[in-house]
Amino acid sequence: MTNPTAAMLVIGDEILSGRTRDSNLHFLAGQLTAHGIDLKEARVVSDDTAAIVSAIRALSASYDQVFTSGGIGPTHDDITADAVAQAFEVGIDVRDDAKAILLAFLDARGAELTQARLRMARIPDGATLIDNPISAAPGFTIGNVHVCAGVPKIFEAMVTSVLATITHGAPLLSQTLRVERPEGDIATPLAGLAARYPMLSIGSYPFNRDGVFGANIVVRGHDGAAVSEAMMELAALFPETTK
Amino acid sequence: MTNPTAAMLVIGDEILSGRTRDSNLHFLAGQLTAHGIDLKEARVVSDDTAAIVSAIRALSASYDQVFTSGGIGPTHDDITADAVAQAFEVGIDVRDDAKAILLAFLDARGAELTQARLRMARIPDGATLIDNPISAAPGFTIGNVHVCAGVPKIFEAMVTSVLATITHGAPLLSQTLRVERPEGDIATPLAGLAARYPMLSIGSYPFNRDGVFGANIVVRGHDGAAVSEAMMELAALFPETTK
Repeated sequence: MTNPTAAMLVIGDEILSGRTRDSNLHFLAGQLTAHGIDLKEARVVSDDTAAIVSAIRALSASYDQVFTSGGIGPTHDDITADAVAQAFEVGIDVRDDAKAILLAFLDARGAELTQARLRMARIPDGATLIDNPISAAPGFTIGNVHVCAGVPKIFEAMVTSVLATITHGAPLLSQTLRVERPEGDIATPLAGLAARYPMLSIGSYPFNRDGVFGANIVVRGHDGAAVSEAMMELAALFPETTK
Repeated sequence: MTNPTAAMLVIGDEILSGRTRDSNLHFLAGQLTAHGIDLKEARVVSDDTAAIVSAIRALSASYDQVFTSGGIGPTHDDITADAVAQAFEVGIDVRDDAKAILLAFLDARGAELTQARLRMARIPDGATLIDNPISAAPGFTIGNVHVCAGVPKIFEAMVTSVLATITHGAPLLSQTLRVERPEGDIATPLAGLAARYPMLSIGSYPFNRDGVFGANIVVRGHDGAAVSEAMMELAALFPETTK
């Protein structure tokens, strides 16, 4: 059984300058795992057309689904929609349905559809809109690329909406054992366990907290029975551990 | 004046599964900005040799400096050192100086240099070691690639140590104005400001908090006088804003 694959592209100078800490990757990763879609790669690029075009093309060609965040607002540094159109070699223009959505939202607030806001109705030819329940300006899907807003609440709503429309796989199950021993002490039996369960992914994530060296051992897989069996073996290998 | 460029490669299934939220990118981004090195791209890949090799080669060829985090411990899923050796087409083996560092640390704690721990002394040919003041097992630099641990405290210590050895540029200066108006209202004057200051990067980062739509306008550049001048114009454009 092979799950669909996905990649994420985070677009924004503010992440690479250290001004903002991205939280969208972590949200998307959790959602995809729960839906049985394997997130294989993520990239962060700056607000630079060539960088966005090149990343979109590379990820779109390599994975089943691509999610982007950021750069679809009304300001001069919002260049994602144009870059995506360029990546797919299609035109881009203001679209009536997107404009109508903006107008309805703005009318209700007594705000104007400025020339700047109209930029948010620019949609690449052939794309379908992604609903934005927070601030109306839609995202869009073109080919296998889902273009979402960067503001976390809006990103999360858009991802939820996209996930209702795409093919899922079997959700990845996982169980964790916390072992308060340095990794160097547990590595050999752990490698043996990993070799006996080639259908599972067994990861060791070291920590060092208050002078205690230890590791969280995470057993992941699509076969719940195998995950449980491996966990029982694991617990027997390290009986003194604390959960 | 052109600053050196950098990229980051985060290695680890746990980030892509949503189990762990990466914090190393945010730390590195802030440090590089303060040191005048422009972080241009970041990638996250899974514990997969082909994916690591391909990302190392792409980033190493495109940027002046590359920092990696993760995958250099003693367990079976720690494959970064071997992948980096493969990316550079050099051999890799246990090195005496790295082994001596491990031995001294373990002796002091009454622990054994197990076969598993000895893996952490495997260093690609031609690399120089990066000091690990927390748990001894060194990182290494080969070519323009700095291979660091994934545990945040160790990653941070290794980055600090590497930054003392590489060429810096002029630090990027930035000032922020918080504007409590929707981006659609400020986009046009903002685009005008950006056009008048082509040597600066002017970013607009929207927020939506407790029903208030607004944006943080960030003015960035290497020329402090230009940054201040643009900020004064910005404050005059939006006089009612709160800082």
